[in-house]
Amino acid sequence: MYYVNENIKDLNRIFDQNSREGYLRLDLNENPGGLSNDFIRQVLGTVDSEFVAKYPETKEFTEKLADFIHVDPDQICLTNGSAEAIRHIIEVYTQPGGKIVSVAPSYAMYAVYSKMYGRIHVPVPYNKNMQVTAQDIIDKIDDSVDLVVVLNPNNPIGDVHSTEDMNRILAAAKEHEATVLIDEAYFYFYPNSFVEFAMNNDHVFLTRTFSKLFSLAGCRLGYVVGKADGIALIQKACTPHNVNGFGIKFAQAIIENNMIEQMVKEQLEGKRYLVECLEQKGYEVNAREGNFIFIKPKSNAKSLTKKLKENGILVKYYDNEMLGELIRVTTGTKEIMQQFVDMIVKLDC
Amino acid sequence: MYYVNENIKDLNRIFDQNSREGYLRLDLNENPGGLSNDFIRQVLGTVDSEFVAKYPETKEFTEKLADFIHVDPDQICLTNGSAEAIRHIIEVYTQPGGKIVSVAPSYAMYAVYSKMYGRIHVPVPYNKNMQVTAQDIIDKIDDSVDLVVVLNPNNPIGDVHSTEDMNRILAAAKEHEATVLIDEAYFYFYPNSFVEFAMNNDHVFLTRTFSKLFSLAGCRLGYVVGKADGIALIQKACTPHNVNGFGIKFAQAIIENNMIEQMVKEQLEGKRYLVECLEQKGYEVNAREGNFIFIKPKSNAKSLTKKLKENGILVKYYDNEMLGELIRVTTGTKEIMQQFVDMIVKLDC
Repeated sequence: MYYVNENIKDLNRIFDQNSREGYLRLDLNENPGGLSNDFIRQVLGTVDSEFVAKYPETKEFTEKLADFIHVDPDQICLTNGSAEAIRHIIEVYTQPGGKIVSVAPSYAMYAVYSKMYGRIHVPVPYNKNMQVTAQDIIDKIDDSVDLVVVLNPNNPIGDVHSTEDMNRILAAAKEHEATVLIDEAYFYFYPNSFVEFAMNNDHVFLTRTFSKLFSLAGCRLGYVVGKADGIALIQKACTPHNVNGFGIKFAQAIIENNMIEQMVKEQLEGKRYLVECLEQKGYEVNAREGNFIFIKPKSNAKSLTKKLKENGILVKYYDNEMLGELIRVTTGTKEIMQQFVDMIVKLDC
Repeated sequence: MYYVNENIKDLNRIFDQNSREGYLRLDLNENPGGLSNDFIRQVLGTVDSEFVAKYPETKEFTEKLADFIHVDPDQICLTNGSAEAIRHIIEVYTQPGGKIVSVAPSYAMYAVYSKMYGRIHVPVPYNKNMQVTAQDIIDKIDDSVDLVVVLNPNNPIGDVHSTEDMNRILAAAKEHEATVLIDEAYFYFYPNSFVEFAMNNDHVFLTRTFSKLFSLAGCRLGYVVGKADGIALIQKACTPHNVNGFGIKFAQAIIENNMIEQMVKEQLEGKRYLVECLEQKGYEVNAREGNFIFIKPKSNAKSLTKKLKENGILVKYYDNEMLGELIRVTTGTKEIMQQFVDMIVKLDC
């Protein structure tokens, strides 16, 4: 009989094929201002026929990245976006029927991969104050759990756990021998990283991406950090040549040119400016630790999202109970935030 | 207890981290001449900060590609190289303990993925004349087989199956309800495609790559063709945003600029030239349907491979019984082949 994987057959995937070209993109936390065209020209200036033709080489970049984040090169596995990193951690460190605990609502792929691989997704819901405590997570951990996911900061809310809380979560996971995945897609917008936990503990891995602060979502590059033994297994699960030459080239140039501090500064200035403007205009703003804020529109969240789009600005609307009255707005430089403020003043009434 | 996937733990993966930069690369069938630097400048000229920052959009390119190969867009799934396509076909259409039949030695990932996912790899060995017949494959197909892989042309030998043979293999697979994967990584160097089998039959899929003829290995782009229902499941198994913007941009430009015929012509001219030169110099050349040939050196294959490398040219040496006396040489333009001929005359004595 023809075999078809029932987990995948039953999976509900959303593939948004709408073009976002030309819009002011404040919907997917990509860092909308992005890299300067001068920098892009400079990086691409060295691309030649050998570069595009050759299977990508990762050694030099891995060494630079390792040096930059103060780990050994064998403590890093490069991936095709952090979405792939998460997938391979699940493939290696969870079993069919095993449980994966993660806050919900959050990045959709935790639930999707769980179903894809026949694992059981155990959501940790936010409470009515839009908070998840360490205890909420710990309460879900038992011996049937293979993987505990902790987002730092959380997506989409932007709340964070203190180091003390993180220690408690790790202790609970260790007690029940569950692997921990710390998702730092939004690191840099919030400087307290838990990377040292991943560097120094077995069965603790940390993922990051170049899609957010670094404005490289089109290039697809992410990575996992962990102890060398554990990383070696994730590396073994990778598809050959999983990262492309362009992602590596841009990421290396950003690191070598020491651009990160300035990028973070511009983001935070823009965010502060946005929050001030909106609060002055009477908005209730939920601005926590990430390159995004939530606001409650004066009109209706869903229809405002539509009107903004008609006027060239994309924001994120969540069709669920907790967030349905809000819109999420990606933050960027002050100039970009000004464009958004001007438009919402016109449209939200 | 901490769960660790034993299949992955036990896996033997080879990650070659040696730099190939600056070498004449005749080892991995990448089309060593590659795209012209003028063309590369032209394509990259339109890259701006939005392009690198934006999650890649695939709709327009998928439509162009579909039009180009005369299928519907929903009959195509884009992948991060064809290595990822093969992986997802295995994930969707084979089960733990199920059998995967493929010619061996060949592309190593058939055996690796089989082990990674707990499937049983059933190799179909070449006979002493370096041939695999349709009957050899059919003999391995029974009800315990989930997937039959047919390479067109075969890698690394370059032998092919006739349409009649392909029909026989498909009939045997159908009788035993096994899915068929036709791997056309080396299509274009040999014009007889089996794409129509994939377009018109359930449970027949065909993979291709932009890494070989198209000189885009650094960009990572491949695809699967099949009936829409079957393709939809492979798409569901994909990681979000699995293909990057640069791969799409280059592939689209190659198609739009009608460059393919000329690229094939140059390859075939170069290959013919290489074979003639080598035969004139008394070499036994095994040149079948692909952008590569095998020759038996006058000296020793392993040491000649080393000497060529020391002189700036990479070729492929297989450390196995069938191929251990030979070297595989990727073909390219006449000018590139001339460089190789000049060097082998000097070194192989």
